[in-house]
Amino acid sequence: MTTLILVPAPLDFGCEAQAPITDVLPLATLQIASSITHWIAENAKSCRAVIKRIGEHMPLAAPLQQHIITELPREVHKKGDHAGAFDAKPFLQEAIKKAVASGVQSIGLISEAGMPAVADPGSSIVRAAHALSLSVQPLVGPSSLLLALAASGQNGQNFAFVGYLPIDAAERMQRIRALEAVAKKTGQTQLFIEVPHRNTALWQALLASLQPSTYLSFASGLSLPNAQIRSATVADWKHRAAPDAGLPCVMAVGV
Amino acid sequence: MTTLILVPAPLDFGCEAQAPITDVLPLATLQIASSITHWIAENAKSCRAVIKRIGEHMPLAAPLQQHIITELPREVHKKGDHAGAFDAKPFLQEAIKKAVASGVQSIGLISEAGMPAVADPGSSIVRAAHALSLSVQPLVGPSSLLLALAASGQNGQNFAFVGYLPIDAAERMQRIRALEAVAKKTGQTQLFIEVPHRNTALWQALLASLQPSTYLSFASGLSLPNAQIRSATVADWKHRAAPDAGLPCVMAVGV
Repeated sequence: MTTLILVPAPLDFGCEAQAPITDVLPLATLQIASSITHWIAENAKSCRAVIKRIGEHMPLAAPLQQHIITELPREVHKKGDHAGAFDAKPFLQEAIKKAVASGVQSIGLISEAGMPAVADPGSSIVRAAHALSLSVQPLVGPSSLLLALAASGQNGQNFAFVGYLPIDAAERMQRIRALEAVAKKTGQTQLFIEVPHRNTALWQALLASLQPSTYLSFASGLSLPNAQIRSATVADWKHRAAPDAGLPCVMAVGV
Repeated sequence: MTTLILVPAPLDFGCEAQAPITDVLPLATLQIASSITHWIAENAKSCRAVIKRIGEHMPLAAPLQQHIITELPREVHKKGDHAGAFDAKPFLQEAIKKAVASGVQSIGLISEAGMPAVADPGSSIVRAAHALSLSVQPLVGPSSLLLALAASGQNGQNFAFVGYLPIDAAERMQRIRALEAVAKKTGQTQLFIEVPHRNTALWQALLASLQPSTYLSFASGLSLPNAQIRSATVADWKHRAAPDAGLPCVMAVGV
């Protein structure tokens, strides 16, 4: 039986300084990942970089240049896994055909950072794997969402991750208030992410829109030496320096 | 400055067969955890078991019997971190006082399985750490929620974890339908957990309450050799054997 293996990637994608991959991927993950030669990747270049780093600690099943890496189509990146017209089933079947022709029983799914298919594309491939009765094996590795949530001091027994907030200022404010209302009503922590160049604008919008008693948490550089993890009420944040916002970050709003 | 270190535990708590801890905790996690001698734990016995397993691979900063382990009070287990009258600040200050008296700068927070403060008690301690201006450092390790979500093939760009569903049959059915309605309206995957002896009843209630087109996923034994990971529409599930439900599991409902 063919297996789709979900391979987590380090969180230092695009960062200047990188720690050894053994710092964030446990031994079983490294061993199983080093046996994979056929991949479906968010991005082929970053996939190759991870394979290379694994190869520094484990013998690879094949030299890097012999790995077969198929990129997820642009459409999935743009519209998400389950919204557009992308049909993951024939896409995965084609990848399986190539793998089986090489006598290989496993295909790796990998994104640029963290767990594939979580806050990243790939879930349509996993769904197709179940539909084709493949075995699905998720490997242990880092997830910025989970690290941020655990470190936030906010409710971790009821939480939601809602992706990116709107860019338009009025829509963003409306969305922030809607998330706060859910948190106040149900106690559910609301996590979201932002790209570095919009962090400051989002932070200002959060301080301007949220009620003083609401908790607001910020985490960037998770699993890295320059990690910034802060959590306080909005009232407290107004007396403090805003977090340094040069890196991808996870934010959380809650009661 | 004192640091509160969030130490993930393996997911095989209470399981008969256990894999080496190096399979699920990366090197940096093992190294940092092996330096900790003062702990706040969900359960002292399972905390000792994890320390012992770490000690098989890394020299411990102190022999196991010299570790100071403070259990979270019963109230937090029963009522949750932010609901009852538990005041985490003096509790943490007392633990810090003991640690500092021993010349120690770090306190570990650990639960029985997976990430502390995520689907487990501990977030009040993390919140108190921020209030006391401690540094908070989450270490990379396994999380059954994230592994289950990634492997479900359901939307991982918008998801919620809602804890346990009600035990009462009528309330449970109402809650299942409410979760399905949120998933249908917003595309947000709804994750929840159950204890082994209620898995079968919950599964039957899910099949009886959900619409045929709704996706329903089941994962147990994550990170273990006997992992069961299945995902299909409710219509498909009705023609299949129910998953073997003897282990703690994560379920997900979505579109």
